[in-house]
Amino acid sequence: MATGERILVTGATGFLGRHALAPLRRQGFEVHALSSRPVTGQAATEAVWHQADLLDAGQTQAVLESIRPTHLLHFAWYAEHGRFWNSPFNLDWLSATLSLLKAFAAAGGKRFVGAGSCAEYAWVEKELYDEQDPLRPSSLYGAAKASAFLTGAAYAQTAKIEFAWGRIFHLFGPYEAPGRIIPALIRAHLWSEALDCSQGTQLRDFLPAAAIADAFAHICDSGVQGAVNIGSGEAVTLRGLSEIIAGKVAATIGRRGDIRFGAFHDAGPAKLLPSVQRLTQELGWRTPITLDEGLTEAIAWWKSQGKQT
Amino acid sequence: MATGERILVTGATGFLGRHALAPLRRQGFEVHALSSRPVTGQAATEAVWHQADLLDAGQTQAVLESIRPTHLLHFAWYAEHGRFWNSPFNLDWLSATLSLLKAFAAAGGKRFVGAGSCAEYAWVEKELYDEQDPLRPSSLYGAAKASAFLTGAAYAQTAKIEFAWGRIFHLFGPYEAPGRIIPALIRAHLWSEALDCSQGTQLRDFLPAAAIADAFAHICDSGVQGAVNIGSGEAVTLRGLSEIIAGKVAATIGRRGDIRFGAFHDAGPAKLLPSVQRLTQELGWRTPITLDEGLTEAIAWWKSQGKQT
Repeated sequence: MATGERILVTGATGFLGRHALAPLRRQGFEVHALSSRPVTGQAATEAVWHQADLLDAGQTQAVLESIRPTHLLHFAWYAEHGRFWNSPFNLDWLSATLSLLKAFAAAGGKRFVGAGSCAEYAWVEKELYDEQDPLRPSSLYGAAKASAFLTGAAYAQTAKIEFAWGRIFHLFGPYEAPGRIIPALIRAHLWSEALDCSQGTQLRDFLPAAAIADAFAHICDSGVQGAVNIGSGEAVTLRGLSEIIAGKVAATIGRRGDIRFGAFHDAGPAKLLPSVQRLTQELGWRTPITLDEGLTEAIAWWKSQGKQT
Repeated sequence: MATGERILVTGATGFLGRHALAPLRRQGFEVHALSSRPVTGQAATEAVWHQADLLDAGQTQAVLESIRPTHLLHFAWYAEHGRFWNSPFNLDWLSATLSLLKAFAAAGGKRFVGAGSCAEYAWVEKELYDEQDPLRPSSLYGAAKASAFLTGAAYAQTAKIEFAWGRIFHLFGPYEAPGRIIPALIRAHLWSEALDCSQGTQLRDFLPAAAIADAFAHICDSGVQGAVNIGSGEAVTLRGLSEIIAGKVAATIGRRGDIRFGAFHDAGPAKLLPSVQRLTQELGWRTPITLDEGLTEAIAWWKSQGKQT
C-alpha cells in the first residue's frame, strides 16, 4: 500500500487516465491529476485537479514544483484516432515527456511510470512479444514512444529515480473513438449495419481500458522497473471478437450486423500478443474485468449513446 | 556533385564539424554554418556563418526560415569529455534535434543527415555491428542518439524528406580533449610520462576526425537513407595503437612513455567494430586519410601544443 504517497496523473481526463484515479486511491495514494482544461462534474471529485499545458516546459516545471509528487503516472500524449500514428505531434509529446521527467526529478520525485505501446517492437512473425525484444517501430507514434522509453529509462538511472513503462497492447471501452475496431463492430451489430473489415484472422490481446488503468495503478505501487507488457494473456481473433459481440447483441435485441471480413488487408502482424509474465508473476496482477465483462459493458454504453454517435 | 545545393552545418566549430566545411565545398555545396558564438579567423572564411542557439526552438525556426537550406548536416550535441555519457543535456539535445528537423522540413528542406554513435547498439559480444542490429544503449548519450535516430527517421518519412544517420565509432584528431585515449597515449609517449590504461586488448576502429567528416560530406551528397556505420573497416587494439604511436614518437624524438595496461578494467565490449559495407559499397567511400597518417598528424599537433596542455 502506498499510504501517504502523493501521485500525479497526467492525461487524467483521457480514455485511459479517467479509469486510473479510483484504483490509485484504492492503493492508498493521495491522487493529484493534471488536465489542460478545467474539470467539472463527477471527475472533479475523484482527485485534486491542477491545470497545466504539458507542451509548455515552463508550466510543467511550475506545476511539478507546486505539487511535489512522489510518484508520477504519465498517460498524456496525442491520441486522435487515425491521426496519432504519423502525426508530428508525436515529436512534441516526446519532448514534453522528457521535460516532465526532468521537472519531476528536480521536484524530488521518486518513481515515474509511463504509458508505452506494442508499436515500439519490431513487428515480426512471432508467438509472444517479450519486454527484452528489439525495438524497431514502424510508425512515428511507436518511434516516439520507444524513444521516450529509451531516453527516459537512461535518464532516470542517472537521476536516481525509479522508472517503469507499461506497454499497452489492445484496449477498448466507453468514450472510445467510434471508428476504432471494437466500437465499429459493436455499432454494426447493434444497428444491423454493414461494416468492411480486414481479414479478421489476426490474433490480438484486448483488455478494457479500466483493466489496463488498474494494471498501471499496481505498477505505480510496486518496485518493478523497466518495460512491462500489459495484456490479459489471452488471444482472440477479430472474427472471434465479432462473434462474441454478435452473440451478446443477439441475446438482448435479436439482430446482428453484416461484417464483411476480407474487404481490405490489415498491415499488422498475424499475431501481436504480449508475454505477460512480468505483469502476472513479478507483479501478481490479474485483470479485475474480463474481456467478456468489458464487452458487455461497452455494448451497454454504445447502446446508451444511440445510433447517431 | 551537389552543385547549387545549399547545406547548413550545425556544430560547425566543433571537433568534427570544423573538418566538414572543406569536403562539402568540394562536393559542390553552397556551405552555410551555424554556431552559438561569433566565428573569427580562418574558419570565418570557410562558410557563410549564422549565429543561433539550437536549444531555443524559436531561434532554430527563425534561422532555418532565413537560410532555407536544401540539406542539413547536424553535428551539434553536448560532447564534453567524461560528462557527455550521462549528462541530462542529452535530453535537451534530443529535443533540440527534433525541433531542428521540424524547422528544416517546414523551411522546404530535402535531405537531413545526422551524427549517430556506436553507443546506440546493444553492446554484446559479436564480430561486427550491422546497421540493422538491435538498439539497446547502455548510456544516456546512446539512448538519446538512438531516440533521435528512431523518431527522426520516422518523422522524415511522414514529412517526405530524406534522412540519413552516420553512426560514428571511434575518432581522434587535433583539438581533442587531452584526457581521451589517443591524446593521452600520444602525450605520455611524447613527454615520457606514465599512463594508467585499461587492459588494452579491446579491438576498436579508429578514424581521424577529418576522415569521418569527409564520410559525412559524401553521405550528404548521396541518396543513401537510414543508418550508415562510419569506420575504416580495420581493427586495432589499444595496445597496438600505443605501439604505433610509440614507434612514431621514438623515430623522431627517441623516447617513449610508460603505459601501464591493466591498471583498470574497461567496461566496453572486447570488440566494438562496425560493418562498413554500406559506407564502402553503397557509397563507394574510402578514407582519404589512413589511421597511420592521422596519427602522424595528431602527434605533430600535440607536440606543437607543448607539454602543458
